Amino acid sequence: MSVTLEDARRVIAAAEKRADEIGQPMNIAVVDAGGNLVAHVRQDGAWIGSVEISISKAWTSKAFDISTKDLGDNSQPTQQFFGIQNTNHGRVAIFAGGVPLSRDGKVVGAVGVSGGSGEQDQTVAEAGAAGF
Amino acid sequence: MSVTLEDARRVIAAAEKRADEIGQPMNIAVVDAGGNLVAHVRQDGAWIGSVEISISKAWTSKAFDISTKDLGDNSQPTQQFFGIQNTNHGRVAIFAGGVPLSRDGKVVGAVGVSGGSGEQDQTVAEAGAAGF
Amino acid sequence: MSVTLEDARRVIAAAEKRADEIGQPMNIAVVDAGGNLVAHVRQDGAWIGSVEISISKAWTSKAFDISTKDLGDNSQPTQQFFGIQNTNHGRVAIFAGGVPLSRDGKVVGAVGVSGGSGEQDQTVAEAGAAGF
Amino acid sequence: MSVTLEDARRVIAAAEKRADEIGQPMNIAVVDAGGNLVAHVRQDGAWIGSVEISISKAWTSKAFDISTKDLGDNSQPTQQFFGIQNTNHGRVAIFAGGVPLSRDGKVVGAVGVSGGSGEQDQTVAEAGAAGF
Repeated sequence: MSVTLEDARRVIAAAEKRADEIGQPMNIAVVDAGGNLVAHVRQDGAWIGSVEISISKAWTSKAFDISTKDLGDNSQPTQQFFGIQNTNHGRVAIFAGGVPLSRDGKVVGAVGVSGGSGEQDQTVAEAGAAGF
Repeated sequence: MSVTLEDARRVIAAAEKRADEIGQPMNIAVVDAGGNLVAHVRQDGAWIGSVEISISKAWTSKAFDISTKDLGDNSQPTQQFFGIQNTNHGRVAIFAGGVPLSRDGKVVGAVGVSGGSGEQDQTVAEAGAAGF
Repeated sequence: MSVTLEDARRVIAAAEKRADEIGQPMNIAVVDAGGNLVAHVRQDGAWIGSVEISISKAWTSKAFDISTKDLGDNSQPTQQFFGIQNTNHGRVAIFAGGVPLSRDGKVVGAVGVSGGSGEQDQTVAEAGAAGF
Repeated sequence: MSVTLEDARRVIAAAEKRADEIGQPMNIAVVDAGGNLVAHVRQDGAWIGSVEISISKAWTSKAFDISTKDLGDNSQPTQQFFGIQNTNHGRVAIFAGGVPLSRDGKVVGAVGVSGGSGEQDQTVAEAGAAGF
């Protein structure tokens, strides 16, 4: 119960389609049940600083079985997880763009998107997850 | 005056019991007087991102002889320890779930729990400490 | 197809039994199919510097589906993998003590042992793997 | 003059074809002229420890405009670059599997492959580069 390369490519294709629609080039990463990278693409013109962020978002989303947007809401100052962003050697991303991939009600992987606004990253990640 | 492996197992058993009661699988870690890991368990289904956080919470709690919840209250923006979460190479956890283990009024170790909400982590950690 | 906490405890018990026989306290760590820690124990008196090494050995053994002893033979100067010890941010251990855990001919996890000579670490790790 | 995502996919397809021929699942990464990741795939069953190594090999190959195999020959004890593997925060890979991608006599990117023996990684990387 994990994510195959074929699964990851399907997720990435769905995410790329959405990125093209909104006209914002993106980094898109997919991780498996163990949080390990299965595939990554950087669309032409997408930010180079977002390579690692896309991977971190995917890892974070699987690591805590939650979207990074929701985790972020809980990681603001005074919130219950404030400080989680300093753990795990900088791999925890707490802003929109990481979305779990589920099968039979179980999180088996995640997709992470980075390259635009939080709203843009989120819609592309959700499109990717829908493609799963 | 420290924590033996037998002590750690008793703490972990008490914490696991509480985690089972509340139905939330957890990572549970115990460190000794030197802040060094004595034992760790990840219950089946617990978040993989919480492995390191449970260890960080235990380390932090012993490192400053305080619960991570109380440290967190003092580490919010404008508070006296704001920024402590960026020290010690990312090992400082400032949210609930790390609780000192004391003997004869002296902190001799700590337990760290991660895998649920702040409230859940805290109650499991306290149950673990009570088992000490 | 991975390693449960119950599996990990069985592996650790078998490894501890062997460590007691040879009279050398050990750190013993077990990781699952994704390379993520399932459980760790440090026996009383075992080296604190070996906490991380035991976890690194387990991770390395699963990460490359090989014993760290065999990987080490291939990572000496002029050998084909020389330099692998500098990758993955210091998590790659290339000396004896990490052994894969297999089920139905597939590596589904690993055990890592550190606390004695290479020979001692290896025999304890093998005993742990046999307990799986 | 760099590497587009389309270029990277062509390189990866050629590398995957060769990996399939030799029956060894691989991690394959492509970087552009800036050394930044363009695309990565992990074939089903390939080592998780090789995710980062494939990226490091690609980065290293472009970073020094040389194959990692040739760099490795110069990085053994007593050789002129011994120690280079400890620089750049662990991103320098000095064993076979990283090959430059050239256009009009200029290195404009690189492909990195990890998942088998040095010989296997090298033949897959060369097949990928030939696909460029």
